[in-house]
Amino acid sequence: MNFSSKLIENAVEAFASLPGIGRKTALRLTLHLVNQDLQNTEQFAEGILNMRRNIKHCTICFNLSDEAICNVCSDKRRDRSMVCVVESIRDVMAIEETSHYRGLYHVLGGLINPLEGIGPSELQIDSLLQRAADDEIKEIILAISPTIEGDTTMFYITKKLRDSSVKVSSIARGVSFGGELEYADEVTLGRSIVARMPYKLNNE
Amino acid sequence: MNFSSKLIENAVEAFASLPGIGRKTALRLTLHLVNQDLQNTEQFAEGILNMRRNIKHCTICFNLSDEAICNVCSDKRRDRSMVCVVESIRDVMAIEETSHYRGLYHVLGGLINPLEGIGPSELQIDSLLQRAADDEIKEIILAISPTIEGDTTMFYITKKLRDSSVKVSSIARGVSFGGELEYADEVTLGRSIVARMPYKLNNE
Repeated sequence: MNFSSKLIENAVEAFASLPGIGRKTALRLTLHLVNQDLQNTEQFAEGILNMRRNIKHCTICFNLSDEAICNVCSDKRRDRSMVCVVESIRDVMAIEETSHYRGLYHVLGGLINPLEGIGPSELQIDSLLQRAADDEIKEIILAISPTIEGDTTMFYITKKLRDSSVKVSSIARGVSFGGELEYADEVTLGRSIVARMPYKLNNE
Repeated sequence: MNFSSKLIENAVEAFASLPGIGRKTALRLTLHLVNQDLQNTEQFAEGILNMRRNIKHCTICFNLSDEAICNVCSDKRRDRSMVCVVESIRDVMAIEETSHYRGLYHVLGGLINPLEGIGPSELQIDSLLQRAADDEIKEIILAISPTIEGDTTMFYITKKLRDSSVKVSSIARGVSFGGELEYADEVTLGRSIVARMPYKLNNE
Protein backbone atom coordinates (compact mmCIF):
# COMPACT_ATOMS: atom_id res chain seq x y z
CA MET A 1 0.00 0.00 0.00
CA ASN A 2 1.09 3.50 -0.82
CA PHE A 3 0.78 5.69 2.28
CA SER A 4 1.06 9.43 1.99
CA SER A 5 1.98 9.57 5.66
CA LYS A 6 4.65 7.78 7.68
CA LEU A 7 2.51 8.14 10.83
CA ILE A 8 -0.42 6.35 9.19
CA GLU A 9 1.94 3.69 7.90
CA ASN A 10 3.33 3.08 11.42
CA ALA A 11 -0.16 2.80 12.92
CA VAL A 12 -1.22 0.40 10.16
CA GLU A 13 1.89 -1.71 10.81
CA ALA A 14 1.03 -1.75 14.53
CA PHE A 15 -2.50 -3.03 13.92
CA ALA A 16 -1.36 -5.45 11.23
CA SER A 17 1.10 -7.02 13.70
CA LEU A 18 -1.91 -8.47 15.55
CA PRO A 19 -3.05 -11.97 14.58
CA GLY A 20 -5.87 -12.12 12.03
CA ILE A 21 -5.64 -8.43 11.10
CA GLY A 22 -4.48 -7.72 7.56
CA ARG A 23 -3.33 -4.40 6.17
CA LYS A 24 -6.72 -3.41 4.73
CA THR A 25 -8.42 -3.94 8.10
CA ALA A 26 -5.52 -2.22 9.85
CA LEU A 27 -6.03 0.84 7.63
CA ARG A 28 -9.75 0.86 8.39
CA LEU A 29 -9.05 0.76 12.14
CA THR A 30 -6.44 3.51 11.83
CA LEU A 31 -8.76 5.81 9.86
CA HIS A 32 -11.51 5.07 12.39
CA LEU A 33 -9.28 6.41 15.18
CA VAL A 34 -8.32 9.47 13.08
CA ASN A 35 -12.02 10.31 12.76
CA GLN A 36 -12.58 10.05 16.52
CA ASP A 37 -11.45 12.44 19.26
CA LEU A 38 -7.86 12.17 20.44
CA GLN A 39 -9.25 11.20 23.85
CA ASN A 40 -10.73 7.97 22.38
CA THR A 41 -7.36 6.86 21.06
CA GLU A 42 -5.73 7.73 24.39
CA GLN A 43 -8.28 5.63 26.27
CA PHE A 44 -7.80 2.80 23.79
CA ALA A 45 -4.01 2.79 24.15
CA GLU A 46 -4.24 3.30 27.92
CA GLY A 47 -6.55 0.29 28.44
CA ILE A 48 -4.19 -1.98 26.54
CA LEU A 49 -0.90 -0.64 27.96
CA ASN A 50 -2.23 -0.65 31.51
CA MET A 51 -3.36 -4.25 31.12
CA ARG A 52 -0.03 -5.39 29.72
CA ARG A 53 2.02 -3.53 32.35
CA ASN A 54 0.06 -4.73 35.37
CA ILE A 55 -1.34 -8.14 34.50
CA LYS A 56 0.05 -10.96 36.66
CA HIS A 57 -0.14 -14.72 36.69
CA CYS A 58 -1.77 -16.08 39.85
CA THR A 59 1.06 -17.61 41.92
CA ILE A 60 -1.13 -20.63 42.73
CA CYS A 61 -2.98 -21.57 39.54
CA PHE A 62 -1.21 -19.38 36.90
CA ASN A 63 -4.48 -17.93 35.68
CA LEU A 64 -4.20 -14.29 34.58
CA SER A 65 -4.96 -12.03 37.50
CA ASP A 66 -4.89 -8.42 38.68
CA GLU A 67 -3.42 -9.49 42.04
CA ALA A 68 -0.78 -12.02 43.11
CA ILE A 69 -3.59 -14.51 43.81
CA CYS A 70 -6.52 -14.67 41.38
CA ASN A 71 -10.12 -14.30 42.44
CA VAL A 72 -10.89 -17.99 41.94
CA CYS A 73 -8.05 -19.10 44.24
CA SER A 74 -8.89 -16.44 46.83
CA ASP A 75 -12.64 -17.21 46.81
CA LYS A 76 -13.39 -19.04 50.07
CA ARG A 77 -16.62 -20.51 48.69
CA ARG A 78 -14.90 -22.58 46.01
CA ASP A 79 -14.41 -26.32 46.51
CA ARG A 80 -10.71 -26.63 47.33
CA SER A 81 -10.61 -30.42 46.90
CA MET A 82 -10.81 -30.29 43.07
CA VAL A 83 -8.36 -28.83 40.57
CA CYS A 84 -9.31 -28.55 36.91
CA VAL A 85 -6.22 -28.60 34.66
CA VAL A 86 -6.54 -26.54 31.47
CA GLU A 87 -4.31 -25.35 28.67
CA SER A 88 -5.01 -21.61 28.82
CA ILE A 89 -6.99 -18.83 30.46
CA ARG A 90 -9.54 -19.09 27.64
CA ASP A 91 -10.52 -22.54 28.87
CA VAL A 92 -10.94 -21.19 32.41
CA MET A 93 -13.32 -18.56 31.01
CA ALA A 94 -15.26 -21.14 29.00
CA ILE A 95 -15.70 -23.40 32.05
CA GLU A 96 -16.60 -20.47 34.32
CA GLU A 97 -19.30 -19.47 31.80
CA THR A 98 -21.04 -22.82 32.34
CA SER A 99 -21.43 -22.23 36.13
CA HIS A 100 -21.16 -26.03 36.53
CA TYR A 101 -17.78 -26.11 38.24
CA ARG A 102 -17.00 -24.73 41.70
CA GLY A 103 -13.49 -26.09 42.22
CA LEU A 104 -10.08 -24.54 41.54
CA TYR A 105 -8.02 -24.39 38.33
CA HIS A 106 -4.50 -24.94 37.16
CA VAL A 107 -3.43 -23.27 33.90
CA LEU A 108 -0.59 -25.15 32.18
CA GLY A 109 0.22 -22.34 29.76
CA GLY A 110 0.37 -24.71 26.79
CA LEU A 111 0.67 -28.39 25.95
CA ILE A 112 3.66 -30.70 25.58
CA ASN A 113 4.82 -30.34 21.98
CA PRO A 114 8.27 -31.77 21.27
CA LEU A 115 8.21 -30.51 17.67
CA GLU A 116 8.03 -26.92 18.93
CA GLY A 117 10.47 -27.61 21.78
CA ILE A 118 7.83 -27.39 24.50
CA GLY A 119 8.56 -29.98 27.16
CA PRO A 120 7.05 -30.44 30.64
CA SER A 121 9.57 -27.98 32.12
CA GLU A 122 8.22 -25.16 29.91
CA LEU A 123 4.74 -25.69 31.34
CA GLN A 124 3.26 -25.37 34.81
CA ILE A 125 3.41 -29.13 35.42
CA ASP A 126 5.87 -29.25 38.33
CA SER A 127 3.73 -26.73 40.17
CA LEU A 128 0.67 -28.92 39.49
CA LEU A 129 2.43 -31.98 40.95
CA GLN A 130 3.37 -29.93 44.01
CA ARG A 131 -0.25 -28.84 44.44
CA ALA A 132 -1.42 -32.43 44.00
CA ALA A 133 0.83 -33.46 46.93
CA ASP A 134 -1.33 -31.29 49.19
CA ASP A 135 -3.73 -33.44 51.25
CA GLU A 136 -6.55 -30.98 50.66
CA ILE A 137 -6.70 -31.89 46.95
CA LYS A 138 -8.64 -35.09 46.24
CA GLU A 139 -9.25 -34.91 42.49
CA ILE A 140 -7.46 -33.58 39.43
CA ILE A 141 -9.78 -33.07 36.43
CA LEU A 142 -8.04 -32.95 33.06
CA ALA A 143 -9.96 -30.59 30.76
CA ILE A 144 -7.55 -30.72 27.84
CA SER A 145 -8.30 -31.08 24.11
CA PRO A 146 -7.77 -34.64 22.83
CA THR A 147 -5.19 -33.65 20.20
CA ILE A 148 -1.81 -35.34 19.91
CA GLU A 149 -0.30 -32.67 22.17
CA GLY A 150 -3.23 -32.83 24.58
CA ASP A 151 -3.11 -36.62 24.82
CA THR A 152 0.66 -36.51 25.42
CA THR A 153 0.20 -33.93 28.17
CA MET A 154 -2.62 -35.91 29.83
CA PHE A 155 -0.56 -39.11 29.64
CA TYR A 156 2.46 -37.38 31.20
CA ILE A 157 0.48 -35.86 34.06
CA THR A 158 -1.43 -39.07 34.76
CA LYS A 159 1.78 -41.09 34.82
CA LYS A 160 3.42 -38.63 37.22
CA LEU A 161 0.41 -38.84 39.55
CA ARG A 162 0.11 -42.65 39.40
CA ASP A 163 1.63 -43.17 42.83
CA SER A 164 -0.20 -40.29 44.46
CA SER A 165 -3.50 -40.62 46.30
CA VAL A 166 -5.38 -38.08 44.14
CA LYS A 167 -8.00 -39.30 41.72
CA VAL A 168 -7.30 -38.25 38.12
CA SER A 169 -10.33 -37.82 35.84
CA SER A 170 -10.96 -36.36 32.42
CA ILE A 171 -13.98 -34.40 31.21
CA ALA A 172 -16.63 -36.52 29.47
CA ARG A 173 -16.39 -36.77 25.70
CA GLY A 174 -19.07 -37.80 23.26
CA VAL A 175 -21.73 -36.46 20.97
CA SER A 176 -22.74 -32.99 22.18
CA PHE A 177 -26.04 -32.47 24.00
CA GLY A 178 -28.58 -31.43 21.43
CA GLY A 179 -26.22 -32.51 18.65
CA GLU A 180 -27.71 -34.59 15.87
CA LEU A 181 -25.95 -37.90 15.33
CA GLU A 182 -25.63 -37.49 11.60
CA TYR A 183 -23.63 -34.28 12.05
CA ALA A 184 -21.23 -35.66 14.69
CA ASP A 185 -17.77 -36.42 13.32
CA GLU A 186 -16.86 -40.07 12.84
CA VAL A 187 -14.22 -40.21 15.56
CA THR A 188 -16.53 -38.69 18.18
CA LEU A 189 -19.44 -40.91 17.20
CA GLY A 190 -17.27 -44.04 17.09
CA ARG A 191 -15.70 -43.36 20.46
CA SER A 192 -19.12 -42.48 21.92
CA ILE A 193 -20.31 -45.99 21.15
CA VAL A 194 -17.21 -47.64 22.59
CA ALA A 195 -17.36 -45.48 25.73
CA ARG A 196 -21.14 -45.83 26.18
CA MET A 197 -22.56 -45.04 29.61
CA PRO A 198 -25.42 -46.62 31.60
CA TYR A 199 -28.60 -44.69 30.83
CA LYS A 200 -29.85 -42.88 33.90
CA LEU A 201 -33.41 -41.76 34.54
CA ASN A 202 -33.92 -38.23 35.92
CA ASN A 203 -30.20 -37.59 36.39
CA GLU A 204 -30.25 -39.88 39.42
CA MET B 1 -18.05 -13.02 29.15
CA ASN B 2 -16.79 -13.79 32.58
CA PHE B 3 -13.36 -12.20 33.09
CA SER B 4 -11.25 -13.15 36.06
CA SER B 5 -9.37 -9.89 35.67
CA LYS B 6 -10.55 -6.29 35.41
CA LEU B 7 -7.39 -5.39 33.46
CA ILE B 8 -8.17 -8.01 30.82
CA GLU B 9 -11.76 -6.82 30.68
CA ASN B 10 -10.64 -3.21 30.07
CA ALA B 11 -8.28 -4.24 27.28
CA VAL B 12 -11.01 -6.35 25.67
CA GLU B 13 -13.41 -3.39 25.85
CA ALA B 14 -10.77 -1.21 24.20
CA PHE B 15 -10.30 -3.59 21.28
CA ALA B 16 -14.03 -4.26 20.99
CA SER B 17 -14.66 -0.51 20.62
CA LEU B 18 -13.05 -0.70 17.17
CA PRO B 19 -15.34 -1.31 14.19
CA GLY B 20 -15.69 -4.93 13.11
CA ILE B 21 -14.01 -6.36 16.22
CA GLY B 22 -16.26 -8.40 18.48
CA ARG B 23 -15.53 -9.48 22.03
CA LYS B 24 -14.19 -12.92 21.10
CA THR B 25 -11.69 -11.41 18.67
CA ALA B 26 -10.86 -8.69 21.21
CA LEU B 27 -10.04 -11.37 23.79
CA ARG B 28 -7.84 -13.19 21.29
CA LEU B 29 -5.92 -9.97 20.54
CA THR B 30 -5.57 -9.20 24.25
CA LEU B 31 -4.21 -12.66 25.08
CA HIS B 32 -1.86 -12.39 22.10
CA LEU B 33 -0.34 -9.25 23.64
CA VAL B 34 -0.12 -10.91 27.07
CA ASN B 35 1.95 -13.70 25.51
CA GLN B 36 4.34 -11.23 23.86
CA ASP B 37 7.01 -9.08 25.50
CA LEU B 38 5.87 -5.87 27.19
CA GLN B 39 8.00 -4.04 24.62
CA ASN B 40 5.74 -5.28 21.79
CA THR B 41 2.65 -3.83 23.44
CA GLU B 42 4.48 -0.57 24.10
CA GLN B 43 5.49 -0.31 20.45
CA PHE B 44 1.93 -1.13 19.40
CA ALA B 45 0.39 1.55 21.62
CA GLU B 46 3.13 4.03 20.75
CA GLY B 47 2.61 3.64 16.98
CA ILE B 48 -1.09 4.33 17.31
CA LEU B 49 -0.91 7.13 19.89
CA ASN B 50 1.90 8.88 18.04
CA MET B 51 -0.10 8.74 14.80
CA ARG B 52 -3.25 10.13 16.43
CA ARG B 53 -1.38 12.91 18.27
CA ASN B 54 0.65 14.13 15.30
CA ILE B 55 -1.39 13.43 12.20
CA LYS B 56 -2.46 16.56 10.33
CA HIS B 57 -4.69 17.39 7.42
CA CYS B 58 -2.80 18.95 4.54
CA THR B 59 -3.78 22.64 4.50
CA ILE B 60 -4.13 22.57 0.69
CA CYS B 61 -5.84 19.29 -0.19
CA PHE B 62 -6.97 17.98 3.26
CA ASN B 63 -5.31 14.63 2.70
CA LEU B 64 -3.84 13.13 5.90
CA SER B 65 -0.26 14.21 6.25
CA ASP B 66 2.69 14.25 8.64
CA GLU B 67 3.43 17.87 7.75
CA ALA B 68 1.31 20.97 7.17
CA ILE B 69 1.52 20.27 3.42
CA CYS B 70 1.27 16.67 2.24
CA ASN B 71 3.86 15.03 0.02
CA VAL B 72 1.57 15.07 -3.03
CA CYS B 73 1.00 18.84 -2.80
CA SER B 74 4.68 19.51 -2.09
CA ASP B 75 5.93 17.28 -4.91
CA LYS B 76 7.20 19.60 -7.66
CA ARG B 77 6.93 16.87 -10.31
CA ARG B 78 3.13 16.56 -10.03
CA ASP B 79 0.89 18.15 -12.64
CA ARG B 80 -0.52 21.19 -10.85
CA SER B 81 -3.20 21.88 -13.49
CA MET B 82 -5.43 18.95 -12.41
CA VAL B 83 -7.24 18.36 -9.13
CA CYS B 84 -8.91 15.04 -8.45
CA VAL B 85 -11.79 15.40 -5.97
CA VAL B 86 -12.36 12.36 -3.71
CA GLU B 87 -14.40 11.47 -0.67
CA SER B 88 -11.65 10.21 1.64
CA ILE B 89 -7.96 9.45 2.01
CA ARG B 90 -8.68 5.83 1.09
CA ASP B 91 -9.63 6.95 -2.41
CA VAL B 92 -6.36 8.90 -2.69
CA MET B 93 -4.49 5.72 -1.79
CA ALA B 94 -6.46 3.66 -4.30
CA ILE B 95 -5.75 6.15 -7.11
CA GLU B 96 -2.07 6.47 -6.15
CA GLU B 97 -1.78 2.66 -6.32
CA THR B 98 -2.74 2.78 -10.01
CA SER B 99 0.21 5.13 -10.89
CA HIS B 100 -2.05 6.52 -13.65
CA TYR B 101 -2.60 9.95 -12.15
CA ARG B 102 0.07 12.61 -11.66
CA GLY B 103 -2.09 15.58 -10.67
CA LEU B 104 -3.14 16.89 -7.27
CA TYR B 105 -6.02 15.86 -5.00
CA HIS B 106 -8.74 17.41 -2.93
CA VAL B 107 -10.23 15.33 -0.10
CA LEU B 108 -13.81 16.36 0.72
CA GLY B 109 -13.93 14.42 3.98
CA GLY B 110 -17.36 12.95 3.20
CA LEU B 111 -20.34 13.43 0.91
CA ILE B 112 -23.41 15.65 1.12
CA ASN B 113 -25.96 13.71 3.14
CA PRO B 114 -28.92 15.76 4.38
CA LEU B 115 -30.35 12.78 6.32
CA GLU B 116 -27.25 12.71 8.51
CA GLY B 117 -27.02 16.50 8.65
CA ILE B 118 -23.96 16.74 6.42
CA GLY B 119 -24.24 19.78 4.17
CA PRO B 120 -21.66 21.46 1.92
CA SER B 121 -20.36 23.54 4.84
CA GLU B 122 -19.35 20.37 6.75
CA LEU B 123 -17.17 19.32 3.81
CA GLN B 124 -14.10 20.82 2.14
CA ILE B 125 -16.15 22.27 -0.71
CA ASP B 126 -15.54 25.98 -0.15
CA SER B 127 -11.80 25.32 -0.11
CA LEU B 128 -12.17 23.41 -3.39
CA LEU B 129 -14.00 26.35 -5.00
CA GLN B 130 -11.22 28.66 -3.80
CA ARG B 131 -8.60 26.37 -5.30
CA ALA B 132 -10.57 26.19 -8.57
CA ALA B 133 -10.41 29.99 -8.80
CA ASP B 134 -6.62 29.73 -9.15
CA ASP B 135 -5.56 30.20 -12.79
CA GLU B 136 -3.07 27.34 -12.51
CA ILE B 137 -5.91 24.81 -12.22
CA LYS B 138 -7.43 23.83 -15.55
CA GLU B 139 -9.41 20.68 -14.72
CA ILE B 140 -11.34 19.28 -11.77
CA ILE B 141 -11.82 15.50 -11.95
CA LEU B 142 -14.66 14.14 -9.83
CA ALA B 143 -13.73 10.65 -8.58
CA ILE B 144 -16.78 10.13 -6.39
CA SER B 145 -18.98 7.03 -6.03
CA PRO B 146 -22.25 7.31 -7.98
CA THR B 147 -24.49 6.82 -4.92
CA ILE B 148 -27.31 9.20 -4.01
CA GLU B 149 -24.93 11.16 -1.77
CA GLY B 150 -22.16 11.05 -4.36
CA ASP B 151 -24.43 12.25 -7.17
CA THR B 152 -25.73 15.06 -4.96
CA THR B 153 -22.19 16.13 -4.14
CA MET B 154 -21.06 16.01 -7.77
CA PHE B 155 -24.15 17.98 -8.85
CA TYR B 156 -23.50 20.63 -6.19
CA ILE B 157 -19.83 21.06 -7.09
CA THR B 158 -20.50 21.14 -10.82
CA LYS B 159 -23.21 23.74 -10.39
CA LYS B 160 -20.95 25.94 -8.26
CA LEU B 161 -18.21 25.71 -10.90
CA ARG B 162 -20.52 26.37 -13.88
CA ASP B 163 -19.40 29.96 -14.30
CA SER B 164 -15.74 29.26 -13.76
CA SER B 165 -13.27 28.55 -16.54
CA VAL B 166 -12.16 25.15 -15.20
CA LYS B 167 -13.22 22.01 -17.00
CA VAL B 168 -15.15 19.61 -14.76
CA SER B 169 -14.89 15.91 -15.62
CA SER B 170 -15.83 12.67 -13.93
CA ILE B 171 -13.95 9.37 -13.98
CA ALA B 172 -15.13 6.94 -16.68
CA ARG B 173 -17.78 4.43 -15.64
CA GLY B 174 -18.69 1.20 -17.36
CA VAL B 175 -18.05 -2.50 -17.36
CA SER B 176 -14.67 -3.15 -15.74
CA PHE B 177 -11.65 -4.06 -17.88
CA GLY B 178 -11.46 -7.84 -17.96
CA GLY B 179 -14.96 -8.04 -16.56
CA GLU B 180 -17.34 -10.47 -18.21
CA LEU B 181 -20.56 -8.88 -19.46
CA GLU B 182 -22.85 -11.47 -17.91
CA TYR B 183 -21.49 -10.68 -14.43
CA ALA B 184 -21.76 -6.88 -14.71
CA ASP B 185 -24.70 -5.46 -12.78
CA GLU B 186 -27.70 -4.27 -14.80
CA VAL B 187 -27.27 -0.58 -14.05
CA THR B 188 -23.60 -0.57 -15.07
CA LEU B 189 -24.25 -2.58 -18.22
CA GLY B 190 -27.27 -0.47 -19.17
CA ARG B 191 -25.44 2.81 -18.66
CA SER B 192 -22.39 1.45 -20.52
CA ILE B 193 -24.50 1.02 -23.63
CA VAL B 194 -26.03 4.47 -23.36
CA ALA B 195 -22.63 6.07 -22.72
CA ARG B 196 -20.83 4.07 -25.42
CA MET B 197 -17.49 5.38 -26.67
CA PRO B 198 -15.90 5.37 -30.14
CA TYR B 199 -13.72 2.28 -30.44
CA LYS B 200 -10.06 3.20 -30.72
CA LEU B 201 -7.31 1.08 -32.25
CA ASN B 202 -4.01 0.87 -30.33
CA ASN B 203 -5.05 3.46 -27.69
CA GLU B 204 -4.53 6.18 -30.31
